[in-house]
Amino acid sequence: MHALSKFFQPSSVVIIGATPKEGKVGRAILENFIKRFNGRIYPVNPGYDEVLGLKCYRSIKEIPETPDLGVIAIPAIQVPQALRELGEKGTKAVIIISGGFRETGTKEGEALEEELIKISREYGIRVIGPNCIGVYDNWSGVDTFFTQKMKKPPRGYVAFISQSGAFATALMDWMAYHGIGVSRAISYGNKIDVDDVDLLEYLGEDDKTRVVLMYIEGIKESRGRLFIETARRVSLKKPVVVYKAGKTSRGGRAAASHTAAMAGDYSVYRAAFKQAGLIEVDSFDEMMDVVRIFLDQPLMRGNRVYIVTDAGGVGVMLTDALTSAGFEVPVTPPDLREKLRSILPPHCIVDNPIDLTGDTDDERYIRVLEVLSQREDVDAIVVVALPQVPGIKGTFVDYIAKTKEETGKPVVALTIGSEASMETARRLQEKGVTVFESPERLAKSLKALRAYSSYIIKNRPGCSRIDA
Amino acid sequence: MHALSKFFQPSSVVIIGATPKEGKVGRAILENFIKRFNGRIYPVNPGYDEVLGLKCYRSIKEIPETPDLGVIAIPAIQVPQALRELGEKGTKAVIIISGGFRETGTKEGEALEEELIKISREYGIRVIGPNCIGVYDNWSGVDTFFTQKMKKPPRGYVAFISQSGAFATALMDWMAYHGIGVSRAISYGNKIDVDDVDLLEYLGEDDKTRVVLMYIEGIKESRGRLFIETARRVSLKKPVVVYKAGKTSRGGRAAASHTAAMAGDYSVYRAAFKQAGLIEVDSFDEMMDVVRIFLDQPLMRGNRVYIVTDAGGVGVMLTDALTSAGFEVPVTPPDLREKLRSILPPHCIVDNPIDLTGDTDDERYIRVLEVLSQREDVDAIVVVALPQVPGIKGTFVDYIAKTKEETGKPVVALTIGSEASMETARRLQEKGVTVFESPERLAKSLKALRAYSSYIIKNRPGCSRIDA
Repeated sequence: MHALSKFFQPSSVVIIGATPKEGKVGRAILENFIKRFNGRIYPVNPGYDEVLGLKCYRSIKEIPETPDLGVIAIPAIQVPQALRELGEKGTKAVIIISGGFRETGTKEGEALEEELIKISREYGIRVIGPNCIGVYDNWSGVDTFFTQKMKKPPRGYVAFISQSGAFATALMDWMAYHGIGVSRAISYGNKIDVDDVDLLEYLGEDDKTRVVLMYIEGIKESRGRLFIETARRVSLKKPVVVYKAGKTSRGGRAAASHTAAMAGDYSVYRAAFKQAGLIEVDSFDEMMDVVRIFLDQPLMRGNRVYIVTDAGGVGVMLTDALTSAGFEVPVTPPDLREKLRSILPPHCIVDNPIDLTGDTDDERYIRVLEVLSQREDVDAIVVVALPQVPGIKGTFVDYIAKTKEETGKPVVALTIGSEASMETARRLQEKGVTVFESPERLAKSLKALRAYSSYIIKNRPGCSRIDA
Repeated sequence: MHALSKFFQPSSVVIIGATPKEGKVGRAILENFIKRFNGRIYPVNPGYDEVLGLKCYRSIKEIPETPDLGVIAIPAIQVPQALRELGEKGTKAVIIISGGFRETGTKEGEALEEELIKISREYGIRVIGPNCIGVYDNWSGVDTFFTQKMKKPPRGYVAFISQSGAFATALMDWMAYHGIGVSRAISYGNKIDVDDVDLLEYLGEDDKTRVVLMYIEGIKESRGRLFIETARRVSLKKPVVVYKAGKTSRGGRAAASHTAAMAGDYSVYRAAFKQAGLIEVDSFDEMMDVVRIFLDQPLMRGNRVYIVTDAGGVGVMLTDALTSAGFEVPVTPPDLREKLRSILPPHCIVDNPIDLTGDTDDERYIRVLEVLSQREDVDAIVVVALPQVPGIKGTFVDYIAKTKEETGKPVVALTIGSEASMETARRLQEKGVTVFESPERLAKSLKALRAYSSYIIKNRPGCSRIDA
């Protein structure tokens, strides 16, 4: 069993600082667990016999078993004592939510944090925190994300490790809104023990996680080598997407104020990420685009992209964007040209981008996809479907998805517009076809997919699927 | 009166090919005019005495006045005759929707198009088209955009000139969904007469247009010099945002297939755009971000940006993005530091980014904005408001907007999340505060604003507002 598994799959949890008082962190966390956690829950608070319908314990000692996981949400000054009692009880995994430690910049805070480190070592307790929002686990129901204004994303396969608690919360909220499924999210605050490296290693083994996303300000120098080794190992199993904050020297200074992270020399990080097979993203949009494409698309085995469109202009934009991203948009070869000519009206353009023009119906898309499916010289297909075109009824959705399934090649789509367009996008995405509204973002995401595919093909020649 | 004004503000229109038949272009256009056009409408169709409740004329000759504007939506072969009759009637502005001309690649199509050119010259008729979707005018109700699946954007101040009809339609639909107001949109198809240069010139004079957006595949070489001269003149009055398609040689080839545009050498375009003060955008996202920031923000007179945030991580991301975009994120000077210390709790970070931390309320934002408002050494303010934070109620919205109004400096915001976040964004945008969800896109847009501001400050020293 993995050392960290008790954080994510405990049979029982003790919540120190559980309270019925509205607006308190201890109440929000207890509510989270009551709502979704299937194991046993032990609230601890000397002031109550019962909290939210559960028996409440006056002290940790009174609990009738050794809880797998401890959660601490009480004033800083009381935390060392609670941690010690958990140690004596035999609990080996503790999330310390409470703030008031090193991040205060005070001597007292620093001393309290040193004490926590000492106790955790003495008892062999693994600690996430302090000063953190902890763990949000969509499969086990472990959930210390106490911000009740955050909407919870659906169950799924993206894991998120974040050096910023507020950003983690915002991103969960965003992903909930966009329907992107999450396996587990972790924000570790002052990280006196469990850090990015440990978590990455755990998520690498985790069969509920197919893509790992990391927000990093800085990795401790002493953990640098292990980070690269771990990242390299995990990258061979699943894509690890990294956003590095504190890239510029001014940003590095801001990071130091924020989490005391040593953002360090960005060029060193950049080289290390590359060496380890990590996929680095440069913007918030790219972060989420790339995660989506990895969730849904198979490996991309070559550079040749075909575009099928009902809008010539968007075809041109895509051709620019894909070419600039290093792809080939091949000029349709004679045999394919002839074939397309035989199935399309004469005014359609068969020269990739294949332009079905504004009077197209679903049928034209289907016929073209049928032809492209059978070609060895097509590595990915981009379908542009602007549904403002009168003839499009949306019946092509199933066929586009089928093309992806049967060819085992990436098939992505682009649509721009209002509700009708969103509805087409939703239906396509439900069936595993990644949809974009920006030609440039589509091209960038496909580039990340291609880069990762090349890495896997080189290092794991037999592998046919990302999550294999 | 401007030569093109009859396209946009006619008192009367004749629609040749008006029909009651469902699904026909001639019906869609007639319906558009009936719905919103305030002038007189003359349907022409020899098959009907009445169409959709309007008296229908058997021929152009029978119309009791000289219509200001003609719209033609009949088979290509009949178009020259109709255009001639309009010429004889004295109509000086005609939109030819019909396709079947040069774009077919046939000798017949080409000959027909040549005939149109000849007739238009003979009678001095200005022509938009053929093979186009024409004009969508939100102020006069001239509307030949026949795609009924397109949602119509609200009245507003963005004009759009597009070499791609389908993209124009998709973008209108998208802008409708996002609530961005449009003045006029034009897609000119084969442009036998009216082109980008004419339209840009017209929109430069148009008091309903505050930002011009152009999608260009290629400008005719013979019009190059005039384009630059016109663009330079218009740019001094209002921002002109350009997206050039066919940047790569492969994209240029696609453009040639699409609109027979000579995409030409991109570096020449790039230099010309710059020389003319145009704002070039490189992606779909940037296009819309930049338009939004120009619509709402005043000129930015210097490089110094202050960030006020409730999320340290997002503060770091923004610092990176702004610094990379060429801005200064000044380290808080001692006097400001002291002032901020006196109004904020001790755990807040006063070193720009000013981090109010996760326990902030609206009041902290207001106090900080009050201080920043009074400083000469602040050129723009970015407010990060992640509303997942429990203490934020949204009462700061008015104050943020007030800060923008009273300082006359750009104030933009960033928020990431689900419905609550969208609601905050909506309220801010309603009050003229441009909102982003991506730090990188925010920085890029602010960069465009700053670049245009520098251009105006240099070339129109006395000007204080973009649309002055």
